[in-house]
Amino acid sequence: MTEGKRLPGPWGRDVRFDRVAILAEGSFDVEGAKTAVGVIRYGRCRTVAVIDSQNAGRTAKDVIGVGEHVPVVASLQEALAFDPQTLVIGIAPRGGLLPAEWRQVILNALEAGLDVISGLHAFLSDDPEIAFVAERHRCVVADIRRPPDALPVAEGLCRSLPEQTVLTVGTDCCVGKMSVSLELTLGARRRGIAADFVATGQTGIMIWGRGISVDACVADFIAGAAERMVLEACRESDWVFVEGQGSLYHPGYSGVTMGLLHGTAPKQMVLCHQVSRPEIRGYGIPIPPLNEVVAYHEAVCAPLFPTKVTAIALNTYDLSPAEARRAIGEAEDLTGLPADDCVRNGPDRLLDAVLSAANVPTS
Amino acid sequence: MTEGKRLPGPWGRDVRFDRVAILAEGSFDVEGAKTAVGVIRYGRCRTVAVIDSQNAGRTAKDVIGVGEHVPVVASLQEALAFDPQTLVIGIAPRGGLLPAEWRQVILNALEAGLDVISGLHAFLSDDPEIAFVAERHRCVVADIRRPPDALPVAEGLCRSLPEQTVLTVGTDCCVGKMSVSLELTLGARRRGIAADFVATGQTGIMIWGRGISVDACVADFIAGAAERMVLEACRESDWVFVEGQGSLYHPGYSGVTMGLLHGTAPKQMVLCHQVSRPEIRGYGIPIPPLNEVVAYHEAVCAPLFPTKVTAIALNTYDLSPAEARRAIGEAEDLTGLPADDCVRNGPDRLLDAVLSAANVPTS
Repeated sequence: MTEGKRLPGPWGRDVRFDRVAILAEGSFDVEGAKTAVGVIRYGRCRTVAVIDSQNAGRTAKDVIGVGEHVPVVASLQEALAFDPQTLVIGIAPRGGLLPAEWRQVILNALEAGLDVISGLHAFLSDDPEIAFVAERHRCVVADIRRPPDALPVAEGLCRSLPEQTVLTVGTDCCVGKMSVSLELTLGARRRGIAADFVATGQTGIMIWGRGISVDACVADFIAGAAERMVLEACRESDWVFVEGQGSLYHPGYSGVTMGLLHGTAPKQMVLCHQVSRPEIRGYGIPIPPLNEVVAYHEAVCAPLFPTKVTAIALNTYDLSPAEARRAIGEAEDLTGLPADDCVRNGPDRLLDAVLSAANVPTS
Repeated sequence: MTEGKRLPGPWGRDVRFDRVAILAEGSFDVEGAKTAVGVIRYGRCRTVAVIDSQNAGRTAKDVIGVGEHVPVVASLQEALAFDPQTLVIGIAPRGGLLPAEWRQVILNALEAGLDVISGLHAFLSDDPEIAFVAERHRCVVADIRRPPDALPVAEGLCRSLPEQTVLTVGTDCCVGKMSVSLELTLGARRRGIAADFVATGQTGIMIWGRGISVDACVADFIAGAAERMVLEACRESDWVFVEGQGSLYHPGYSGVTMGLLHGTAPKQMVLCHQVSRPEIRGYGIPIPPLNEVVAYHEAVCAPLFPTKVTAIALNTYDLSPAEARRAIGEAEDLTGLPADDCVRNGPDRLLDAVLSAANVPTS
């Protein structure tokens, strides 16, 4: 087995992260397997196989549009032929519990000598049987969402940072906040800007190799965890792009969003929206027009610090090119802000907007 | 030892709760010992002594204005003379850690056969030495802030409840939200209204005997925990008064406040403010004028559900009667809403306002 990349963290020893197989049984599609899509698209590890018997025989690109060399296989047994070091749990279900039928697959992976990386709320390494089998086979079970000990209460320090901090906010969960923050970070680096990404969720942590899943922190420490990460990132970088979480409009997750907003006190926000989604998914709450969403986010922050939405990041993955162009134009007309789909078209237009807002020349 | 009241909960067996001693060494004052003040003022248990060597020889009433029959003593040893069953940790420090010098006092209490109730973030029952000593002496260590297992993600159900739900919100932490919610609940019950109190913090839980400390939940479940409690309370009650937490203006705790707001989706909010406090304590962030605070809270909720601030609850504990009267008048002029200090003057004026807003006759 190759030795190489490792994912450091609070799980005993670093987990091997060169060659991973992703478990996404029954859920491997763009909407259901957010973690799998993120790791295949942006991960620094090599995904050697995806496990999903419903799509076995196809490639990841056939199913989700990225990963043309990633085979989808029917079982862990078949995935082992591609010599993975690590099994990544590729879904992030609501509530974060382990689907019962995946338990045996995880035990089999450990018995085959694989490490396991999970972003579930239910920590696998707290499961006595999983922990026992991991120990016996000297494998690591890394619960990416487990927060570090002794987090601080936020002190409001990010409000006075000289660095440019940019937080992605969204009209709902799963609209592309992580991808947009990553695209902006990578785009800025390509221009020679000292930029860093702050991962605040399990997929972001798997991709970037560090971070804290703020939605898994004890509630009093959401903002404190975010603040700590931003302060650390600012030591080395002039621009810090923070992965947003949830939505201020989401009845379940708005607390996490608010804590992240106040903890990071961003200089700018980039508003993310999936064009084909009129409502908060699963709640039937209509998403207001984007100009109202912009004003709402600025008004929520105003008593604590000045900030602006400076760009609109649209997710048009399920639209035709013509529909996407029209949606982008409509968003620009409605908000008066630059808009684009940076996964479809690259981050340059949004990055120009963000840099211009901070008076950085863009050409 | 008397057998009687018990505090049920997820800590093994119920904890005895008839006769308690409160540990507040070095912190027994109105601002520093919120838990002690709340338990003495509203608790259904009898507080037999408060431990604080700085104030030994006085009564609780001398120090905090309530508890004329509660002696303050210099040590646990002296408190034992008053035959307590249980030691209550009477402070709720920022960050929730155990002051190092209190550790031995807790061990000594367990060795003397006392149960221990703690509202700290650092769970005492996870401490191997404390757990071992408790076990050996067959005592219970109840970590009131430990959340129940398997909390749900909020489903937005409180938005369509027919019952009247009233949440206290505040301009800062520690301004009186719990006390106001309790006063309104007790006042409504005195008028024969089926009213319940929903405890969302450690002191409220100690007083009411049940509840969930939402600030100690995993962040994704803040709103879900609040929603579950409100739905349960509505089964038996027409009016539900929910204890608020933190403040939307608080850089450290606003996530908890937002989650509570969206999880409970209150029909009405009662805004709590300490008149002598111009800034968020410890952050130097000015508190806006109360009319702006009212508008801000209504605007934050508007995209999800309609709600109004219907009364202003002022905390005037450190003002003279004349100053308090003036402050109440000024708040009414500024907001156009009924205002009062219901700890000083009783809850009737605020309760009338809340009932009237729901078209319930008040006389």
